[in-house]
Amino acid sequence: MNIFSNNSYDRHEKVLFGYDEASGLRAVIAIHNTQLGPALGGCRMHPYASEADALTDVLRLSKGMTYKSALAELPLGGGKSVIIGDPSKDKRPDLLAAMGRFVDSAGGRYIVAKDMGICVPDLRAMAEHTTHISGVGECLDVEGKRRDGDPSPSTAYGVFCGIEASVEFHLGRKHLEGLRVAIQGLGSVGYSLATMLRKAGAELFVSDINAASVERAVRELDATAVAPTDIVALDVDVFAPCAMGAVINEQTVEVVRAKLVAGAANNQLATPAQGDRLLQRGILYAPDYVINAGGIIDAYYMDHGKSAQSLKTHVENIATTLERIYHESKRFRLSTQEVADRMAESRFMATERLAS
Amino acid sequence: MNIFSNNSYDRHEKVLFGYDEASGLRAVIAIHNTQLGPALGGCRMHPYASEADALTDVLRLSKGMTYKSALAELPLGGGKSVIIGDPSKDKRPDLLAAMGRFVDSAGGRYIVAKDMGICVPDLRAMAEHTTHISGVGECLDVEGKRRDGDPSPSTAYGVFCGIEASVEFHLGRKHLEGLRVAIQGLGSVGYSLATMLRKAGAELFVSDINAASVERAVRELDATAVAPTDIVALDVDVFAPCAMGAVINEQTVEVVRAKLVAGAANNQLATPAQGDRLLQRGILYAPDYVINAGGIIDAYYMDHGKSAQSLKTHVENIATTLERIYHESKRFRLSTQEVADRMAESRFMATERLAS
Repeated sequence: MNIFSNNSYDRHEKVLFGYDEASGLRAVIAIHNTQLGPALGGCRMHPYASEADALTDVLRLSKGMTYKSALAELPLGGGKSVIIGDPSKDKRPDLLAAMGRFVDSAGGRYIVAKDMGICVPDLRAMAEHTTHISGVGECLDVEGKRRDGDPSPSTAYGVFCGIEASVEFHLGRKHLEGLRVAIQGLGSVGYSLATMLRKAGAELFVSDINAASVERAVRELDATAVAPTDIVALDVDVFAPCAMGAVINEQTVEVVRAKLVAGAANNQLATPAQGDRLLQRGILYAPDYVINAGGIIDAYYMDHGKSAQSLKTHVENIATTLERIYHESKRFRLSTQEVADRMAESRFMATERLAS
Repeated sequence: MNIFSNNSYDRHEKVLFGYDEASGLRAVIAIHNTQLGPALGGCRMHPYASEADALTDVLRLSKGMTYKSALAELPLGGGKSVIIGDPSKDKRPDLLAAMGRFVDSAGGRYIVAKDMGICVPDLRAMAEHTTHISGVGECLDVEGKRRDGDPSPSTAYGVFCGIEASVEFHLGRKHLEGLRVAIQGLGSVGYSLATMLRKAGAELFVSDINAASVERAVRELDATAVAPTDIVALDVDVFAPCAMGAVINEQTVEVVRAKLVAGAANNQLATPAQGDRLLQRGILYAPDYVINAGGIIDAYYMDHGKSAQSLKTHVENIATTLERIYHESKRFRLSTQEVADRMAESRFMATERLAS
């Protein structure tokens, strides 16, 4: 039994285990760091094979949120929660109510949002027991349209701005006209990104396990369909992973032919070693949690009822952050991932701690 | 790694792990049950050999507090906290401040008090960061004297009343005149109990690892000194354990010659099996957490500024609770420990849970 000495503990401020006998709730809230503000992070519901798996997952994700919010320049810390259970069977109203009370008991140091297995109606059920909740309101998106809590367009827009900045830094090109981009995954973020890129004149190569999405992109966006197995090694300018994580692993890192890797997927690198290898190979990597921060920026603006224009400006700032990371990476010959981590840490760690 | 499936977890509502990098605090707050009120329980500081040891300790102690407060008829639940560290080396102001903040973050569902390794000045240091704290005020004791947070006289008085009730039930004697009582341990509770028993005419046999305490009892209370190894098997009417726990184990349970076991020590039985064995042997056992509840009753009255007379009446009620337990034990042929547990559970479990 280890919490403090768990490999993923990494100085979490708090880890809360909650149990509710009546509903059968077993949940963990991990609060990694609240130096910059309350810890915002999604609640994931999953039938974990073991408690240890659940704990490792929540600790790893929670820490990631600290880094993401810090570099997104939001007054938020990092946290995450997990419910041990099968969302298709165990997600009853009394369990969601108990989770709402559990979130509330953290006194606002943790703010819950949705994640795998938890959708907006589930959040609304929790919201009857706590006000420390994100993503249950309506708001305007970056284009000023009303929508219901889906931050995908903001995430896609942030990735788009990030690709523009990366292309300018690495290829010296100010426009995307004729740029060849391979997009892996045409979910709501991937498709939205494809639309923006196409509008800017890019040539698209797409893959998805869902054939209908690929057909639609071919028809609407003049994209070229690519087999899912071929997309990573395609000879293009930009490879944009927008599906599962760990797509850049020990094997695939050697076959990437794109000049840049910049996409919306979480945890694109299997290990930090791949960040170093991409640097060696001269491939510019846009750290995933920096370029895909549009979603959390959106959530923050939505929760605070801010204007679509101020949200847009904040999302566009992702480009500036990436440029800063690229310059430091070049200067110190460190992977962009490592530079991003250090930059985030210098923001969320208290000054007196840095000095020690 | 197991929390929910830890042997001692037993349906804890919450287990909170807290870490503070600056001070090095590593602490666990266990909240077993808050059905009857906020979870009150001491904070123990100890250089645990492992995290697992710390967790097992806090879970076990926390659960015990639920049972104790429930049977003491207090509007309190059960909780406990541990700080992993050496009180003689690691107890710095910043660590106590961090612990105070950690307690505060539980939002009042946990109320901290002192326990091994944590004294009143330590609590006062925590009190600068939280109001959810017990035992930092001054009050009157059962005899109306002003004192500084030490509940020992109330604990001793409760045990005294409990012995009276037990003697009446089991031996049919209304007075303690000439009763032979063996007291193991002459700490503040043990000595105070000895004084009360002597005043009531009992004949005392005492042991303690501290020779000075024994000499004082011999001199002041006309007690007979007994070797620590002999006290358990002494031929007396009442054996009153007032020192360490697990004094009634698989071996000693066979050699007890007293007709009653009734004392202030915590966790007197090594396992529940010894409760059954005492029943078989016709020895009446006063469940420890019932008879020694004077301390927590005192803490509750002190925190709420209640009168010495109302405190005294509440402590005296321990006798009534014990009588009820003894009658049920006789009726159902269950050990007094088991009857006490079931009685406590019927109080702190919600009715709908009992029904299921």
